[in-house]
Amino acid sequence: MALPPGVSERNFRRALDRFAAVVGSEWVFSSDADVALYRDAYSPLWDEPEEKVASAAVAPDSTEQVQEIVKISNELRIPLYPISTGRNLGYGGSAPVLSGSVVLDLKRMNRILEVDERNAYALVEPGVSYFDLYRYIQERGLKLWIDCPDPGWGSVIGNALDHGVGYTMNPYRDHFDAHCGMEVVTGGGELVRTGMGALPGAKTWQHFKYGFGPHIDGMFSQSNFGVVTKMGIWLMPEPEAYIDGTVEVFGHDDIIPLIDHMNYVMNTGLQNAGTNLQSPLRFAVARNPELRAALASDDPTDIAKLNAFAREADVPFYTNIFKFYGPEEVVRAQWDYTQRRLSSIPNVRFREGDFYRFPISSEEKSSARDPQDLGYPTLATFSIGARSNFAPATRGHLGFSPVIPMTGEAVIESQRVFQRVLQEFEGDAALLVFPQSYHPRTLVILCMFYVMPEAEANQNVRRVFKRLVEVAAEHGWGEYRTHTAFMDDCAAAYSFNDHALLRLHETLKDAIDPNGILSAGRYGIWPKHLRDG
Amino acid sequence: MALPPGVSERNFRRALDRFAAVVGSEWVFSSDADVALYRDAYSPLWDEPEEKVASAAVAPDSTEQVQEIVKISNELRIPLYPISTGRNLGYGGSAPVLSGSVVLDLKRMNRILEVDERNAYALVEPGVSYFDLYRYIQERGLKLWIDCPDPGWGSVIGNALDHGVGYTMNPYRDHFDAHCGMEVVTGGGELVRTGMGALPGAKTWQHFKYGFGPHIDGMFSQSNFGVVTKMGIWLMPEPEAYIDGTVEVFGHDDIIPLIDHMNYVMNTGLQNAGTNLQSPLRFAVARNPELRAALASDDPTDIAKLNAFAREADVPFYTNIFKFYGPEEVVRAQWDYTQRRLSSIPNVRFREGDFYRFPISSEEKSSARDPQDLGYPTLATFSIGARSNFAPATRGHLGFSPVIPMTGEAVIESQRVFQRVLQEFEGDAALLVFPQSYHPRTLVILCMFYVMPEAEANQNVRRVFKRLVEVAAEHGWGEYRTHTAFMDDCAAAYSFNDHALLRLHETLKDAIDPNGILSAGRYGIWPKHLRDG
Repeated sequence: MALPPGVSERNFRRALDRFAAVVGSEWVFSSDADVALYRDAYSPLWDEPEEKVASAAVAPDSTEQVQEIVKISNELRIPLYPISTGRNLGYGGSAPVLSGSVVLDLKRMNRILEVDERNAYALVEPGVSYFDLYRYIQERGLKLWIDCPDPGWGSVIGNALDHGVGYTMNPYRDHFDAHCGMEVVTGGGELVRTGMGALPGAKTWQHFKYGFGPHIDGMFSQSNFGVVTKMGIWLMPEPEAYIDGTVEVFGHDDIIPLIDHMNYVMNTGLQNAGTNLQSPLRFAVARNPELRAALASDDPTDIAKLNAFAREADVPFYTNIFKFYGPEEVVRAQWDYTQRRLSSIPNVRFREGDFYRFPISSEEKSSARDPQDLGYPTLATFSIGARSNFAPATRGHLGFSPVIPMTGEAVIESQRVFQRVLQEFEGDAALLVFPQSYHPRTLVILCMFYVMPEAEANQNVRRVFKRLVEVAAEHGWGEYRTHTAFMDDCAAAYSFNDHALLRLHETLKDAIDPNGILSAGRYGIWPKHLRDG
Repeated sequence: MALPPGVSERNFRRALDRFAAVVGSEWVFSSDADVALYRDAYSPLWDEPEEKVASAAVAPDSTEQVQEIVKISNELRIPLYPISTGRNLGYGGSAPVLSGSVVLDLKRMNRILEVDERNAYALVEPGVSYFDLYRYIQERGLKLWIDCPDPGWGSVIGNALDHGVGYTMNPYRDHFDAHCGMEVVTGGGELVRTGMGALPGAKTWQHFKYGFGPHIDGMFSQSNFGVVTKMGIWLMPEPEAYIDGTVEVFGHDDIIPLIDHMNYVMNTGLQNAGTNLQSPLRFAVARNPELRAALASDDPTDIAKLNAFAREADVPFYTNIFKFYGPEEVVRAQWDYTQRRLSSIPNVRFREGDFYRFPISSEEKSSARDPQDLGYPTLATFSIGARSNFAPATRGHLGFSPVIPMTGEAVIESQRVFQRVLQEFEGDAALLVFPQSYHPRTLVILCMFYVMPEAEANQNVRRVFKRLVEVAAEHGWGEYRTHTAFMDDCAAAYSFNDHALLRLHETLKDAIDPNGILSAGRYGIWPKHLRDG
């Protein structure tokens, strides 16, 4: 049996026995086979000594049981790692940051406590998945949409706390921004309700975010200081219609006006969804070494070659899908305006896309390009780097995704910078180096890596990843979210004033979770007793 | 000379001398005449022994000077009360919560550090007012709007930290939600940058809110734990056009479908501005005792009388102005749709309102109904309860504004409940009891009071106010923001789990501001040494 660091076998067994007394022995998992289920299937550390693994897991069924487990863990100094439901693949899965932690698995707390159709919100527990919430709404015929990320098995609470995103419109697609009100068991074991929930019998816990006084909810995102046991989430009333259309641009520098226009339509609320940027040209040149190398070049001759290829092969350098939700006459006017605005880009081309009136039929659902755009959850995303039908076979994928300014110039510069780093390393680790906007006003460059069955390949990926983190920081770009394997590396880049923010996080840690039992090491924040290690 | 509580005259003089050495003696204010300028002109405690008054004030010019002042205050245990610029009338003005505190006046830190037109944001210091930012933008001909609250003299940072609001559209009108990135001097004296600002040389401090790891910005709203010395604010790109229109409904219960439809158009992003609800009927019956009393009644006979009056006098029970920003064809389609949607309310009437194409002329500006709706600051709001031309003459006003559910039923119930409380008290303290939505999804009932020259009248207002807080709490409704005179009363209502949230705030206080020097008592949060007093 693996042990939490610094915990005696005797104390660990006592803890598991006391956990069992709280939740029932069938909900305490300590056999090798059971604990193996909490391994991270996409881990870039897979089967290596550094792989992050749990010692055990415990699955409470209620807030009261969470409080009891936290109390016992404080007494016996057991490190806990809360997870909700779903997989969190690419970000560390259900495995803890600190090997030997006990996973606090909240999947049984899957109650949908309230869905209010008129005010369009839900109050849920952490085990509620997007599928669960979707089905609940459908079964009752409520005219409400969920906003879900790629895999629908994820937790509504877990994804929001992880600063996850979806695909419909503001404010729903920024899942943390769409939350309203929390119930939290702090690391020290206190049960707290935030916002208006601090008022007994509150009628507006899911209406008004800030409550009275300082607004501390954000502190509990990333689960360093407390276990969120209930959370409100704003839902989108079913719109009457949806329309999308694609804009195609053909020049290397056209990304500059394209993003400027995107900023305008997004920041004036005309188009409230995120981007769906693609580069057909990047795929078209993938097997042409000369043109591919030109993508990382700032030599005008190389750029001219790419532009000539785009023109002659009639392959757009960039495309973006603009999506609109609302009454038919409004969304058509919005798409018309968007085309008129973008028509100043030379040789721009527009393609009409999908149009739906809601509710849609099940045939329309199953043929939809991106079901998440229409408010329903799928697992279709797992065709990315798909394992069985993809050569070479991968175990999964991993994203390096620093935030860059939302300008075409930054896209061009960051693509060059990162392509050059990738070229320094042998192998062909990166799937793509590409901009996308999920959070409002925020552009990330996505570098996707394969995670492979072979340790050696993963070691190379880790080296590349760490180098990318350093190079990004030199340019003023930082990660917004990362895999558990790289949390300390990414956190190290946020070093303003001798790491003042990290030190403040540590001050909060010591105050709210004084025995340092929760989520040790998550996002670089370690408890006092492990800080110098 | 007034002294801070628990500070010897000798130490106080030493502190003022050391402050003078940092900022220059002309920026330390301790004469009675100077300190009197920091009194709260709208205080309901005016000239009574309980009036909250400063002992002195100090006005630094830079973050470094703020750090020095905080350091000295920690050494000598001087309570500091940070203010920015403007007046904050109705919420305590520039007077501290704890009498004898030294006001940390940030008005000299009025630099506009950056305005980015393409990405539509500004980075400002706390002394920057809405007028300052507006002028800066106009002088440079930037196509950007500000979103400002009623008085344009307020601080962009101060208003956001106070959970203040404006009048254009989401996300801009919720000023805290529109902030992005902070620089803070904590109570303990640490200089911290939040979000992406924690990365040295960050290029996206004003692009992406959350940064890496937990998102702690909200903790610094209301200024309990730190002094915000820089903040990013998202600005709205100039829209092409604006249209508004008024909806009039005539039945007592029509507020129910009216608010349901408002929820729909607001929550689907069709109409992103707040409400502008009025009740012509309430004003029309103000001098009719029988009908006025009927407003607080749930007797169907009384309601029928009100409905008959509305019908016969052709006076709407409620009106709301719907506002739309965007290209002309889009905003016209949005207003048309809104009318179609609301046409199911019996006898509903629509009135075309204003239409503007931007930029507008200075004639259009000066004739605009609400200049804030069009993105420019004014001081016109000070006609509310205007002092000289109003009988009886008041000194100012004060708002009791609990958050109620955003439904017509809650409006009807809360109006009855609060009217009855007001009728218990002699006098005619309340200006109105009326719903309005400023923050997204949030309805507040506004009870406006006059603040009078006579202490006795103000004592009555305080009694009524405290009773309203209690009655509201019994119904699950709580204040979102309040005058400093009532912070402890309002905070006491947020008592879930033996005041767990307040205790967590206190834990944060002790950790981040260990000597308890900042904003003592603000929003009910007291430092340890004053907690039991």
